[in-house]
Amino acid sequence: MAAVRARTVLLTGSNRGIGLELVKQLLGAPRPPAWIFATCRDPEGPRAQELRDLASKHTNLVLVKLDVANPSAVTDAAKIVEGKLNGTGLNLLINNAAIYTPAASLETVDAEEMIRTYKTNAVGPLLVAQAFLPLLKKAAQESTEKGLSCNKAAIINISTVMGSIEKTPESFFKPVISYRCSKAALNMLTKCQALTYGEAGILCVALHPGWVKTDMGSQEADLTVDTSVRGLLSVLPILSEKHNGTLLNWEGKAIPW
Amino acid sequence: MAAVRARTVLLTGSNRGIGLELVKQLLGAPRPPAWIFATCRDPEGPRAQELRDLASKHTNLVLVKLDVANPSAVTDAAKIVEGKLNGTGLNLLINNAAIYTPAASLETVDAEEMIRTYKTNAVGPLLVAQAFLPLLKKAAQESTEKGLSCNKAAIINISTVMGSIEKTPESFFKPVISYRCSKAALNMLTKCQALTYGEAGILCVALHPGWVKTDMGSQEADLTVDTSVRGLLSVLPILSEKHNGTLLNWEGKAIPW
Repeated sequence: MAAVRARTVLLTGSNRGIGLELVKQLLGAPRPPAWIFATCRDPEGPRAQELRDLASKHTNLVLVKLDVANPSAVTDAAKIVEGKLNGTGLNLLINNAAIYTPAASLETVDAEEMIRTYKTNAVGPLLVAQAFLPLLKKAAQESTEKGLSCNKAAIINISTVMGSIEKTPESFFKPVISYRCSKAALNMLTKCQALTYGEAGILCVALHPGWVKTDMGSQEADLTVDTSVRGLLSVLPILSEKHNGTLLNWEGKAIPW
Repeated sequence: MAAVRARTVLLTGSNRGIGLELVKQLLGAPRPPAWIFATCRDPEGPRAQELRDLASKHTNLVLVKLDVANPSAVTDAAKIVEGKLNGTGLNLLINNAAIYTPAASLETVDAEEMIRTYKTNAVGPLLVAQAFLPLLKKAAQESTEKGLSCNKAAIINISTVMGSIEKTPESFFKPVISYRCSKAALNMLTKCQALTYGEAGILCVALHPGWVKTDMGSQEADLTVDTSVRGLLSVLPILSEKHNGTLLNWEGKAIPW
């Protein structure tokens, strides 16, 4: 099976759940990236202990503070990463950070919860892509590969089938309105990014990791985080132009909007 | 052609554009509603002069102050309308108020613009539906009609084809990222409302009015506001269970998500 060969990778929300597992499996790959920038809100805090332990063992893993809901923190992080990359580009940006409020039904959700979730789940990925765009463009220019790929330059937005309007009836036993609306918007953003950044050689795809046993997904979920992330990492190398601006699941199957 | 026979109607953003024309054509219908609640941010201000002129001639037209981006203004408006309805229900809620920033491309859009637009275009319709839900439920209970219809009880969210992720490539010459993301979220909200409120006898549908010659649509647009609103008002009476949770255009044609 093909593996991702992106030289440099940046992930948001990488201190736990799917983000942390992505870091682990990337570190353990046959040809791991030269640099993995693992970002999270508080890399010095107690919830990033596992990430710090990994960084103490892997010199290619760099922890960077980045709160996607804070615009100035996003640009600060981009400056730090630019310095580390020392004139080279960023191949792969994985927008993974997201929040989820299980109790947000139409009866209970309020404006504050709607906006808080939108800010992290839709506006955050937009700002992160804006801030890292010069580094992604640089990677695309450096590459000799034709077409679009994750090895060259790509933005992967971790979305969800719960952002699919078409599929909503199937999972509406969990209404989670604020989450669903933010992820439908993220899917729209992915399409807009694909249409805007494709010309610069940057692939933009939304991926659904499945319903995963994490703090967010709870222990009732279908998939282990290991299975989900193995799936995601096997989908990344097969992505090309024809997937630009689409939503796929962890097995590479298309999900309707 | 069938006409809407909703006894009571409430519209947001009704001082100009499509909202104002909806008010005019509803007033001019063969059997106009007993009450039309025309709401806008500032019914006393200079931009509501035409609405005030209409109210001076039509005793069934009531102007109500309602800023959909202000949660307490939404609940205040619902109390006023409840008082006027004097124990009866509200049949038809038309969430029409929206904002649009033509210049918002991926290069230029910022967090503030994304959130401002989401607040009015997606969170606003959610809050308005929450606040008027008891009156919509009352209308559904009062009705002897079977199934779902705009005559009985309905929430119509004025959306747009620009909120369709599938159709984005066709209109991306105008990127308008903040608008597109907010309307994709509104489409998701409509589906969630349909799944939640359908059981209470309330129909929930999103409608695309076309690209209309208004302040928002500009004079380059395809349709006159008269044609668009005539279309919308001829679609309302044909809506039933099978349209619940869908997006249709002003001619009643389905638009993919």
